[in-house]
Amino acid sequence: MTDPSTHVNVLINSNVNENNGNDVCDGEERLIKPRNNFASYSSDDVSIRFRNVRSNSQGNICNIVENLSHRRSARLNAEDVPPGATNFLSANYESLDYDTCENYILLDEERRKGYKFVVKKNLARWFIFLLIGICTAVIACFVDISIEELSSVKYSRLKIFMDECVLKNCLWLPFFMWLALNLVPVLIGAVLVAYIEPVAAGSGIPQVKCYLNGIKVPRVVRIKTLAVKIIGVICTVVGGLAGGKEGPMIHSGAVVAAGISQGKSTTFRKDLRIFKYFREDHEKRDFVSGGAASGVSAAFGAPIGGVLFSIEEGTSFFNQSLTWRTFFASMITTFTLNIILSAYHGHPGDLSYPGLLNLGKFETMTYRVYEIPLFMIVGIIGGLLGSMWNYLNYKISCFRLRYIRAKWLKVIEALVVAAMSAIMGFLMIYFLDDCKPLGQSPTKFPVQMYCKEGEYSAVAALWFQTPESSVRSLFHDPKGSHNDVTLAVFVILYFFLAAATFGLSMSSGLFIPSLLIGAAWGRLVGAVFTKLWPACEFLDPGKYALLGAAAQLGGVVRMTISLTAILIEATQGISFGLPLIIVLIMAKWVGDFFNEGIYDIHIQMAGVPLLPWEPPPLSNNIYASEIMSHPIVTLKTVENVGHIVELLTCVTFNGFPVVDPPSSDEAEINCYGRFRGLILRSQLIVLLQNKIFNEYNEFWETIDIELFRNEYPRYPTIKQVKITEEEKTYMMDLRPFMNPSTYTVQHSASLPRVFRLFRAIGLRHLPVINDTNEVVGMITRKDIAKYRIWKHQGRMGLDELLITDKL
Amino acid sequence: MTDPSTHVNVLINSNVNENNGNDVCDGEERLIKPRNNFASYSSDDVSIRFRNVRSNSQGNICNIVENLSHRRSARLNAEDVPPGATNFLSANYESLDYDTCENYILLDEERRKGYKFVVKKNLARWFIFLLIGICTAVIACFVDISIEELSSVKYSRLKIFMDECVLKNCLWLPFFMWLALNLVPVLIGAVLVAYIEPVAAGSGIPQVKCYLNGIKVPRVVRIKTLAVKIIGVICTVVGGLAGGKEGPMIHSGAVVAAGISQGKSTTFRKDLRIFKYFREDHEKRDFVSGGAASGVSAAFGAPIGGVLFSIEEGTSFFNQSLTWRTFFASMITTFTLNIILSAYHGHPGDLSYPGLLNLGKFETMTYRVYEIPLFMIVGIIGGLLGSMWNYLNYKISCFRLRYIRAKWLKVIEALVVAAMSAIMGFLMIYFLDDCKPLGQSPTKFPVQMYCKEGEYSAVAALWFQTPESSVRSLFHDPKGSHNDVTLAVFVILYFFLAAATFGLSMSSGLFIPSLLIGAAWGRLVGAVFTKLWPACEFLDPGKYALLGAAAQLGGVVRMTISLTAILIEATQGISFGLPLIIVLIMAKWVGDFFNEGIYDIHIQMAGVPLLPWEPPPLSNNIYASEIMSHPIVTLKTVENVGHIVELLTCVTFNGFPVVDPPSSDEAEINCYGRFRGLILRSQLIVLLQNKIFNEYNEFWETIDIELFRNEYPRYPTIKQVKITEEEKTYMMDLRPFMNPSTYTVQHSASLPRVFRLFRAIGLRHLPVINDTNEVVGMITRKDIAKYRIWKHQGRMGLDELLITDKL
Repeated sequence: MTDPSTHVNVLINSNVNENNGNDVCDGEERLIKPRNNFASYSSDDVSIRFRNVRSNSQGNICNIVENLSHRRSARLNAEDVPPGATNFLSANYESLDYDTCENYILLDEERRKGYKFVVKKNLARWFIFLLIGICTAVIACFVDISIEELSSVKYSRLKIFMDECVLKNCLWLPFFMWLALNLVPVLIGAVLVAYIEPVAAGSGIPQVKCYLNGIKVPRVVRIKTLAVKIIGVICTVVGGLAGGKEGPMIHSGAVVAAGISQGKSTTFRKDLRIFKYFREDHEKRDFVSGGAASGVSAAFGAPIGGVLFSIEEGTSFFNQSLTWRTFFASMITTFTLNIILSAYHGHPGDLSYPGLLNLGKFETMTYRVYEIPLFMIVGIIGGLLGSMWNYLNYKISCFRLRYIRAKWLKVIEALVVAAMSAIMGFLMIYFLDDCKPLGQSPTKFPVQMYCKEGEYSAVAALWFQTPESSVRSLFHDPKGSHNDVTLAVFVILYFFLAAATFGLSMSSGLFIPSLLIGAAWGRLVGAVFTKLWPACEFLDPGKYALLGAAAQLGGVVRMTISLTAILIEATQGISFGLPLIIVLIMAKWVGDFFNEGIYDIHIQMAGVPLLPWEPPPLSNNIYASEIMSHPIVTLKTVENVGHIVELLTCVTFNGFPVVDPPSSDEAEINCYGRFRGLILRSQLIVLLQNKIFNEYNEFWETIDIELFRNEYPRYPTIKQVKITEEEKTYMMDLRPFMNPSTYTVQHSASLPRVFRLFRAIGLRHLPVINDTNEVVGMITRKDIAKYRIWKHQGRMGLDELLITDKL
Repeated sequence: MTDPSTHVNVLINSNVNENNGNDVCDGEERLIKPRNNFASYSSDDVSIRFRNVRSNSQGNICNIVENLSHRRSARLNAEDVPPGATNFLSANYESLDYDTCENYILLDEERRKGYKFVVKKNLARWFIFLLIGICTAVIACFVDISIEELSSVKYSRLKIFMDECVLKNCLWLPFFMWLALNLVPVLIGAVLVAYIEPVAAGSGIPQVKCYLNGIKVPRVVRIKTLAVKIIGVICTVVGGLAGGKEGPMIHSGAVVAAGISQGKSTTFRKDLRIFKYFREDHEKRDFVSGGAASGVSAAFGAPIGGVLFSIEEGTSFFNQSLTWRTFFASMITTFTLNIILSAYHGHPGDLSYPGLLNLGKFETMTYRVYEIPLFMIVGIIGGLLGSMWNYLNYKISCFRLRYIRAKWLKVIEALVVAAMSAIMGFLMIYFLDDCKPLGQSPTKFPVQMYCKEGEYSAVAALWFQTPESSVRSLFHDPKGSHNDVTLAVFVILYFFLAAATFGLSMSSGLFIPSLLIGAAWGRLVGAVFTKLWPACEFLDPGKYALLGAAAQLGGVVRMTISLTAILIEATQGISFGLPLIIVLIMAKWVGDFFNEGIYDIHIQMAGVPLLPWEPPPLSNNIYASEIMSHPIVTLKTVENVGHIVELLTCVTFNGFPVVDPPSSDEAEINCYGRFRGLILRSQLIVLLQNKIFNEYNEFWETIDIELFRNEYPRYPTIKQVKITEEEKTYMMDLRPFMNPSTYTVQHSASLPRVFRLFRAIGLRHLPVINDTNEVVGMITRKDIAKYRIWKHQGRMGLDELLITDKL
């Protein structure tokens, strides 16, 4: 116990090292090899396969670790990854730890505070969910109203100038005005995102999805991100880009949840000193899932859809009480939103005012059984167009990764797309002749253009409003409001525009653009059906617009249940639930045949080690000993401080198994230590920072768990910790702080078994033990995420992913 | 390997044995004890605490096990459990095993069949979900239409006689006729349930809930049960009992799913030899959850509600692909149901025909923000009345457990309740004078009674239809259709009637009765509000009937999310989603303050070891070594056949750890074997039955995994297996068949850790290992289920449950 000699227990599985590349990469071939010959698993099998290295000289630790790292399968440099590659894992994502560290100081707190503390925590949870619901709604209202007001100003000005200039033949004036009104907000939004907070780009749903999956996406739930996201999304929509506010709202809900539940903010350097007991990954995740649900609820007024969204994206950890709290938060959000917006719309207190529905209210729609094949056709078209859109966006993203890397280039790119959107719109209005009588006009700013007196240009109506209002128009405009040619041109232009917009350095979602594209071609398809069966009275264009919108969105994002609920809640079209389900399922099936959902594509392109829902098929004969990382570095239960400092400096591992050092007579035959527990880098750093050494602290009972919570989630680096030379000779007892009895697996456990444990419990580190309970390796998320199914390779095989350093 | 001497490795934790009763029972006290002194966890701690017993003489096994069993905490006899006790666990429930046994013959099959087999299985899964959807819908239609037709006959006859006899003063005639028409179906239903299949009693939802939780409820998913359930529920509703068909339909869906997915039936002794690869607990459970969702979908026409029901009851194992398949099955069910019923109702092909909605279509309902407190009041009333109803039903069930045990008594009881329902109805019609003009009559069989010409008795209208139609009337009848006095009397009578009905030996659900009670008092509450604020135009009685119904049902069953979705889907009242959510959450909170949901009460009364959603609070300092069962009986990797036969004969354990026998030089210091894997009783029996002995089979590769699947799920008992004396000297190699590398925990793992593993993975057996990977105990479901929170004790402490033998 007082022996200050350092002890690095490193293990090399020479077998795996030498064959690693081939052994794992040869896909289906390995499935034929008779690997599962049970006779090979005698109890001393593993000890033969491992070669042991041991060092007792302090100075060598880094060298040894260095040497060992070189022996491991080579890591790629970020530059070597071809842009757009989806078969690599980036090294800059770490896992969250959803397994509670039940160390002795936690038990001590539990015992001291007793049952009242449990009740208090529980009440605090409900209270926080209430706050999350309210704040998310307030933010959503702010975004909604800002967009509404600013767009109103923009399009009303434009309309006036248009109307005047058509007569005065000065159409260049409104055109450049339009261009300017697009470029200015987009410039603001793009600069904010590119220079201040790049993680605020895009919809935020992939990031939230990753977070719920257990991946630490840097800065994704910070308040700064929230601020940029909110302003950015207003700029996007007001700037006339083909982007929606829904994704960002969902992300906002998640940030709000993470912020409120922690009672402190890094951005503001403010610690409110409340809710400290929720400062751990596990609790935070639960709040974030509630926040995401609130975000959906705020974006669409769909509380049930919100809960389903959280469940569909994060089911592996859901339980009943979390579901109920999530539901509660969603409900509060819708409620708050409706109160504020009903007041804004001039119907204060009337919560059932249909104007609150984003997508407009559908009255009862009828359909008959022979329409089902038509619905299926719409679903198939949606699947095809959706996967095509995904492919297009993927290719554009590849281009971006390759050529648009500088910040200023990203800003310029956003400006170009914004300009294109104005140009396209203007050209369409100019060239397409689609006049409708004003009487049935549903638009706020009808532009006459070259139409006759008392008529307005239906093309301009599509462009002179936010995309959301356009969706509403397409859903609810009566038959004949839109020319087929207009719609066809609009679909094509908007299809490309939306594909170019998603992935820009702007915060913008793709729900509304997808719905808009779908609604437009849905109306077209409806028109085609009407021509084929003119006698049929059921072929309402609005109905097919809704179905088309659902199909397109389903084909792009591949969600089914939550989308059904969202669309039903956002249109109150419950009588139309069954067709929606049919369309969404068809779209998903067809789309899945070609590629993955757009979020998954972007997640793969970023190299995020997302764990899928189920272990890869045919992986029962891959064993933990092949998956695990090694060599591993272990610590003794009572360890020398200098050794810990040195270790933390030279390795980047986040978790260290704590072992009993082998007793002197055992040491000759066996140099792995017996597994005692697991300690995290962050814990070690807090211990070092607070100088919790045996020489200073006689009793661990005096150490407060708050020490660890105060630093969560951003711990200092080892360089920031000052340890004197004398202190380096001191000892630290790790036992009160380590997580004793973490989950472990045997070296002979199969990949699916390891996977299920990892996924179901939300682990970050999984020590692998041998037959005598000694640690021989460590499995982390990336070790498992490497095994993935490759849909786009045409076959379903297993491949090892490349691992890169920071991209 | 060839040593035929038997080897029973039994462990006694003398410490736990002697203190068991006190040690676990003293609830909060133990939380104060400083048990978590980490210093006590040195590596050889456990070996000191355990005393080891070893036997090498074959004849002694049973004696030893016998002796050891006596040392364990005494089991209660079933007679000693007071009727209505909820703090005991019955011994006649076993766990299902949701952890796949990845033994070598499974791996072998996987390797042989390759990737095509994975695709085939996946397609088969979708196909089975399709079949489940269709079959459930067909059954639901059969039930629906039978009830509709038979009730029509019953009430039309009664109406004619009533109308005639009022004039002729022979009211005794329709009274006795009514009595007879109630008694005959109830007699049929009660006899069927009591004498043929008792498990078909009640709604079946608690049983399905238990099944999804992982408990093997005997005979619950058999076809015989299904048949009795279907006929029984028709009898219940036609017999005029206060029961609904919804619960039984959900149960039916589950049975259909279990039946179809297994491709064989025990009842018909027919094995179709298809879908053999789904013959394991894990796959079957997934299908059953889809079946339950289909059942909800069939009962209410609510596909989303169905999915949410399955998730709310079984979230711990849900993943995305299962959710999608469940959704698919639900959708198919609604679709099939709508096609059949729209044809039956004379609107063939019109799937959006509102007459398909069980609870009638609500047009848009408006509400204003100041109504929210009123909604909350309705929710609170619902919570109060719901928990009162639960308490009443609990007391009645206690009475039943004590006095009504014989089958014939159960039949008589059902007849008495049926008679009461007729008597109550008749008295109400006779004494209450509530005449309404015929014009606004929504009832099919208006009875004039003592009303004037052109009027009908509104009381009779409530009784002369199925409860479901009554709910529809209360929801949609215009203002003033019902007298307040009528409603008040009806609520009181029906409240007691429903409480007496649920738990009868009849298959009947409580959804519709609860909705009916709630709808009635909801209308009353609405009337009260109208009197308080007569100027308010929003106080529509139908709206409050719906809210009351939701509140009452929510107060009884305590589901929130799925009920919201179900009620919205069944009434298409989406604009009313928010009030429904408020009411359901309030009802749940208020109800939970007093007692648990009715299903949980019944589950506890049956002593089912249901695992809750989360581990009990403050249980971090309870260790696996305290929870685990011991002594345990282990088998060697290569074991003597005679020994296995003897062991299976004298112990009832279902899982046996397989260990490496200690080598001769270790044996002196250590007699636990090193953990190698786990083998199930069922596997051993199949091995014995097929005589898979080393002496007969040279290669395990020749053994087909189908052997095991053919017997699933009802394996022969050890008595049915014939082994000759000579064979008893043979050896069996267990390694190809055992589950190698099952999940294990360290003896020092905490209860929450064990709990989460058990719950998340769905385990049946969890071996506990010591520091050197030797098995020291076994944790099963009952060991964990013992630790439960006692709400009705007023405090939240931990208590050990009593374990009984068969009840």
